[in-house]
Amino acid sequence: MKLQRFILYNLILFSWNLFAQTKSSPMENFAIVMHGGAGAILKKDMPPELEKQYSDKMKEALQAGYDTLKKGGTALSAVEASIKILEDSPLYNAGKGSAFTSDGKNEMDASVMDGKTLKAGAVAGVRTIKNPVSAARMVMEKTPHVLIAGKGAEKIAKENGLEIVDTSYFFVQRRWDQMQKAKKEEKIKLDHSSDTSGSIQPLNDMFNDKKFGTVGAVALDKFGNLAAATSTGGMTNKKPGRVGDSPIIGAGTYANNATCAISCTGHGEYFIRYTVAHDVSALMEYKGLTLEQAANEVVMKKLVAAGGEGGLIGIDSKGNIAMPFNSIGMYRGFAKKDGKISVMIYKDDLPK
Amino acid sequence: MKLQRFILYNLILFSWNLFAQTKSSPMENFAIVMHGGAGAILKKDMPPELEKQYSDKMKEALQAGYDTLKKGGTALSAVEASIKILEDSPLYNAGKGSAFTSDGKNEMDASVMDGKTLKAGAVAGVRTIKNPVSAARMVMEKTPHVLIAGKGAEKIAKENGLEIVDTSYFFVQRRWDQMQKAKKEEKIKLDHSSDTSGSIQPLNDMFNDKKFGTVGAVALDKFGNLAAATSTGGMTNKKPGRVGDSPIIGAGTYANNATCAISCTGHGEYFIRYTVAHDVSALMEYKGLTLEQAANEVVMKKLVAAGGEGGLIGIDSKGNIAMPFNSIGMYRGFAKKDGKISVMIYKDDLPK
Repeated sequence: MKLQRFILYNLILFSWNLFAQTKSSPMENFAIVMHGGAGAILKKDMPPELEKQYSDKMKEALQAGYDTLKKGGTALSAVEASIKILEDSPLYNAGKGSAFTSDGKNEMDASVMDGKTLKAGAVAGVRTIKNPVSAARMVMEKTPHVLIAGKGAEKIAKENGLEIVDTSYFFVQRRWDQMQKAKKEEKIKLDHSSDTSGSIQPLNDMFNDKKFGTVGAVALDKFGNLAAATSTGGMTNKKPGRVGDSPIIGAGTYANNATCAISCTGHGEYFIRYTVAHDVSALMEYKGLTLEQAANEVVMKKLVAAGGEGGLIGIDSKGNIAMPFNSIGMYRGFAKKDGKISVMIYKDDLPK
Repeated sequence: MKLQRFILYNLILFSWNLFAQTKSSPMENFAIVMHGGAGAILKKDMPPELEKQYSDKMKEALQAGYDTLKKGGTALSAVEASIKILEDSPLYNAGKGSAFTSDGKNEMDASVMDGKTLKAGAVAGVRTIKNPVSAARMVMEKTPHVLIAGKGAEKIAKENGLEIVDTSYFFVQRRWDQMQKAKKEEKIKLDHSSDTSGSIQPLNDMFNDKKFGTVGAVALDKFGNLAAATSTGGMTNKKPGRVGDSPIIGAGTYANNATCAISCTGHGEYFIRYTVAHDVSALMEYKGLTLEQAANEVVMKKLVAAGGEGGLIGIDSKGNIAMPFNSIGMYRGFAKKDGKISVMIYKDDLPK
């Protein structure tokens, strides 16, 4: 009788442990979130056919990340796979389709961060690497460095077998026209401006277009690890050599299993000065805020007060996601464990 | 009688306010703190004459910052004035005397941040600007950007009247020899290494020298404003295009009147991944730690656990300073309101 009771007791205990482990295990949850840039994206200016193209491409990218996660791939591989698809598309401002600098060149930046190891890699001002996000991962995995700029990065990418293309590969007529328009408007503005300091005024012209093209992805994999990646062609008509927040760990990209993975898009200078990606993480770690609270605090309060336009995507280790933005629109979407893929553009869009 | 009492009451109130304002006003306190790099600086390897040269130059730099603050200059002007003196000296690894890349070039990085406005400026990979710290300030004040790299930065510096020099100006024989030695050791190591991944091994060689030359300054001015600046020639034998933490706002440099001003020196890749400068600020702002507690938490705990060697200098809005480092030594010093200038090199040095 005593033995029977002992066995029964242990059976109950064993079952409970099994149940509890299944419930609390992060091993089964996974998700990916993406953005494709924030800014003055107005429904009235968007032909339905173009809107469909943007949405379809974002869905394709999310599907690639989802498939990677579903078959047990890492969060790092998922964000890379997803971003490569947007880099290869002329629609988004990253890789092919990158914005032009004021001297008519494409200078691209990208970064990745692994939330498990806090390792990171980034490239800045690269002009011949087909997929800057893969170059960022290569810097992280194959060099002792975090950030490599310009020709130095291109040389290492080539040595490591990454695809190198002619600079003409990145040319997209629409981007060229945007740059020419921005140049013209800057000139007109300067001609009529009473402000001769040359300091702040041209900035406003530069942002007339108000579309901060950048692509980003954050993911949680089946092993409970987080990763983030960001890639961009930068601002239209930017000065040659200008580096935004995208390749800056802590500004445009951050991932830490203890808190969250973040990728930003917006007026990069503000995102650097406010160390936006790390600030969201710090608010969670040191102040106990949830991902949503922390992301809103930074994007909807701090950045709004400073005049810094843009948004971010974030995911925490439980799979909670946040996608706040203070601009008119932000290309964004997510795929959760159930396989349903949702993409949105405008402020009041419901997931669809 | 009633009127007399009213007058007396108001006189007391007025006197108290006057007293309280004097007591709590930060208007009178000011200070500057500097570092000149951290690493394996051993007293046994340091000829007394050379030690004196390093100390004298650091004192001269601190004096320049102190003089600026004393006559009512801004913290920003003080850190710039101080750093220019170390940049102009062949002793420190910034400006003249910068380390060489693996292909025998000097590529310099610098940044500044204004704690009052949270504005920031930085340059990376510049090769012809005599004072990179002044170029960083120029980016902050004369362009809409925060970070400009390479030739783009050099072009804007020239347009804004900064002193441009031939690349040969930066040549210092000792630095050249260090690079040659590092190259040789890296080769020997690779030749004998069983690890063929080419990923981590070379790093150790690169840090054989274990001196992370960077110069930095943080200051509090009479108006209660903070500023930080950092300038470096980078790692000896670094890959061309490698960017360390020095030009990265939030990593090597950060300033915020609400918390502190920070400048870092050390193994830059760790300082980027751990967003060191902003992390100290976040620990103060969100967790209520003092500057000293926050700086120790990051440098002596987080970085030590990760294997990231180096240190930082910090100052808060009350003039408290911190100078933690986890390496063997760190060139450092400070000048407070009383005009006394203290410099130190080794771990157990007392201010002298």
